[in-house]
Amino acid sequence: MEIPVVRKVLDVNDQMAQENKDYFTEQGVYVFNLMSSPGAGKTTLLTKVLQKLPPEIKAAVIVGDVCTTNDADRLSVTGAPVVQITTDDFGGDCHLAAHVIRKAAKELDLTDINLLIVENIGNLVCPAEFDVGEDSKGVVLSITEGEDKPLKYPLMFRVCDVAILNKMDLVPYLEIDAPLAVKNMLTVHPEMPVFETSATKETGLDGFIDWLTTQMENKRKAG
Amino acid sequence: MEIPVVRKVLDVNDQMAQENKDYFTEQGVYVFNLMSSPGAGKTTLLTKVLQKLPPEIKAAVIVGDVCTTNDADRLSVTGAPVVQITTDDFGGDCHLAAHVIRKAAKELDLTDINLLIVENIGNLVCPAEFDVGEDSKGVVLSITEGEDKPLKYPLMFRVCDVAILNKMDLVPYLEIDAPLAVKNMLTVHPEMPVFETSATKETGLDGFIDWLTTQMENKRKAG
Repeated sequence: MEIPVVRKVLDVNDQMAQENKDYFTEQGVYVFNLMSSPGAGKTTLLTKVLQKLPPEIKAAVIVGDVCTTNDADRLSVTGAPVVQITTDDFGGDCHLAAHVIRKAAKELDLTDINLLIVENIGNLVCPAEFDVGEDSKGVVLSITEGEDKPLKYPLMFRVCDVAILNKMDLVPYLEIDAPLAVKNMLTVHPEMPVFETSATKETGLDGFIDWLTTQMENKRKAG
Repeated sequence: MEIPVVRKVLDVNDQMAQENKDYFTEQGVYVFNLMSSPGAGKTTLLTKVLQKLPPEIKAAVIVGDVCTTNDADRLSVTGAPVVQITTDDFGGDCHLAAHVIRKAAKELDLTDINLLIVENIGNLVCPAEFDVGEDSKGVVLSITEGEDKPLKYPLMFRVCDVAILNKMDLVPYLEIDAPLAVKNMLTVHPEMPVFETSATKETGLDGFIDWLTTQMENKRKAG
C-alpha cells in the first residue's frame, strides 16, 4: 500500500538533495549529516566537537527536532551559527528532507562557513532513507542502546561513512558487550571507521575530529 | 509535499485499526501497544513482566523489527507465543501498521489468549501516528535518553495511556534530573501514570503490572 508512494517521495527528495549538494560545493561548504536514536548524545557531542575544531574550520549547524528549540540553545554556546528546524511545521516529520535543508540554509550566511553540520531528527530508521545534499553521513550509537542495534537497523549503519559509539563511560554499569557492538557495525558495514567516545567526559573526540577534517581536506584537494 | 499523502495512508490505517479492535474484542483479547526509542529496554521489560503476570493472564506477543529475530528469541524464554514481524518485507517500515498486525495475528491461536502485547519498532516518532487496533498504548523512555525527550517528541507521550521510565538503576552515573523527566511527561500528558523501573534489576515492575491488569479487568467488566 505505502511502498509506491514512499518511492515517489524519495525520488523527488534525491533530486533536490543533488541540487543542494551542487550548491554547497559551489559555496565551498562541506556538509556532514549526523544521525542517531533519540538521546544518543548528538547535541552534547557536537557542542564538544565544535569547541575543539582547528581554527581554520568555520562551522555552522542546522538542527532538526519535531518540537522545541532546546538543541539550538545548547549549541549556541559554541559560537557557531545555528538554525533550528522544528518539523512540526512540516507535519511532524520523522526526518529532515532535502527541501527542508534548502530552506534552512537560506537563513545562514555561508560566506565565512566551510563546514555545515546537519543534526538530524532522533530516529534510526527514516533519516537513513533521505539524503539532504551531504558529503558524508555519520551515526551516533549510545552503548546504552545495546549491541544489537546495527543488526536491527542495518540501513542506517550501511549508509553512514563513520560511526561513533558514545556514552562509553557507562560501560562498567551496563550488562553489555561493547566490542560486539563494534563488531556488529562492521558486519553491516565492513571497514567503516568507528570511534568510541564519551561526549560528557570528552574522551575519544580527537579521532573523530581528525577523520572529519581529513574528509574536508580530501574534498578540497579533489575540487 | 508529503502531508496529503501521509494523511491518506493514516485514514486507511485508522479504518483497519478499528476493524482489528472489533475483532480482538470479539475474541476476548486485550491489546497493549508498547513503543519506545531503539534500545530503551522494551524487550527486557516484557521478558520480566511476562514472567510476573498473574496466572489467569494468558499473554502472546507480536514483536516488530526492521531486521533480525533477536527479540522473538529473547521473548520465547517466557513461554508466551511470539510472532516476529520484520518490516524489511514491507519496505523497511519505521512503524507497525494495522494491516501488518492483522496478518501477524492470524499466526496466533487466540483461543487461550486474553492479552496481546505489540512490541513496536524502536522509534519515538512514526509509531505514535499509527493505531494498530489496541486498547491502550504505552511508551518506555530510558532515563539515559535525557529529560527533554517528552517535550521533543510530544505526540508519543500525548497518545500513550501509560509511561515507563526505565534504566533508573543508571541514574547515579548520569548527569540527569530524573524528576524533571517525569515532570516533562506530565506537562505533555497531565495525569498519565508513570512507573519508574529498572527492567534488568527487576525494580518497579509491579506497579505497571497492576495498572495493566486493572485495565484488562475494566474492559472485561465494561464488555
